[in-house]
Amino acid sequence: MRRGTARALRERSALFQLLDQALVCHLGVIIDGGPLVVPTVFATDPDGPDEDGTLYVHGSVAARSLGAGVESDICVTVTQVDGLVLARSAFHHSMNYRSAVILGRGRLVDDPVEKARALDLIVDSVVPGRAATLRPHHRKELAATVVMALPLHEASVKQRVGDPVDGADDIAAGGWAGVLSLSLAAGQITTSADAQGLEVPEHVRRRAAALTVSG
Amino acid sequence: MRRGTARALRERSALFQLLDQALVCHLGVIIDGGPLVVPTVFATDPDGPDEDGTLYVHGSVAARSLGAGVESDICVTVTQVDGLVLARSAFHHSMNYRSAVILGRGRLVDDPVEKARALDLIVDSVVPGRAATLRPHHRKELAATVVMALPLHEASVKQRVGDPVDGADDIAAGGWAGVLSLSLAAGQITTSADAQGLEVPEHVRRRAAALTVSG
Repeated sequence: MRRGTARALRERSALFQLLDQALVCHLGVIIDGGPLVVPTVFATDPDGPDEDGTLYVHGSVAARSLGAGVESDICVTVTQVDGLVLARSAFHHSMNYRSAVILGRGRLVDDPVEKARALDLIVDSVVPGRAATLRPHHRKELAATVVMALPLHEASVKQRVGDPVDGADDIAAGGWAGVLSLSLAAGQITTSADAQGLEVPEHVRRRAAALTVSG
Repeated sequence: MRRGTARALRERSALFQLLDQALVCHLGVIIDGGPLVVPTVFATDPDGPDEDGTLYVHGSVAARSLGAGVESDICVTVTQVDGLVLARSAFHHSMNYRSAVILGRGRLVDDPVEKARALDLIVDSVVPGRAATLRPHHRKELAATVVMALPLHEASVKQRVGDPVDGADDIAAGGWAGVLSLSLAAGQITTSADAQGLEVPEHVRRRAAALTVSG
């Protein structure tokens, strides 16, 4: 890995690793002729109906961008910020990050079996192991939920790691430069007011532990 | 604040507070007829040239969406994830979050004075107090940097807080439900290989402390 500049990663494993780690994506659609970007939850299905795997995104805003039965171009972007890159000049400031941009034709998921599976994958992508602990979806719930599918075909992954890259003059001037690392961290688990006294499930504790930052 | 459902916040202060806290935004543009969403850094200028304040976003992708001198519609979305809302049914799963969606005509910032000020604001929005410690921008650096301005006029802020909201039957069934809180946390400050032995500036330590999660 070349350090200090954003570079494209070509391995599919980098794409799936990033999509596994991230909790939310930003979905871009065209509505009324302009771009609209909304955060939402998502999941990947490597064994989905599309040749390269399928990405499922949750959300009704996507449906608004669709004409009656017509597929439309959408963009799903996933970003993890790993650190602030603090250079000696404003110009060389940057972030260490990983991001994936996935482009394609969105497809509204109609089939209740595919939709239920997609929603279970979304629950499990947020808290692994949780979907199997929940009751089955009600038919009304499936009807009231919008899921879009996007082929994991046209995807680009970028990553920046490492130190700032300053010019020789700025380095010679003797100022400090470095990286402040960042990560998403779990805090408290709060049991609902209407579930007091019940034990926090093991899969929830595991999820919190996996997200907890030490030091 | 009504708990348990996403609701729109009307106060301008909620918009500016969220924009102050967030480190990155997702910029949506239309390129080749389709939406494209990319992460980038940004800053707000309440005293900017637009009546309701100005948002400045960094990035060359935005420029690609502009015709020669023609302004274009863009969307800037900022999201902070505050917690995973773990309900008894998949249907009622959610996130606690705050998000802002800002729509408008993007304007390419040409004036070097406005551009330098915008870039200083962007540096300071990432690490408050840092811009004043850096040398002035070189003219070539300003020319090589793309900054877009967006009026903070058409902005909607949404927030969800609180417990999951489950149906009575699911609550009666006796399963656990709750919230796993999340936040962005600072980790280590790593001094660059070419700055070894130099002291970490106070404003960088302060930024790390402000982002550090306890417990």
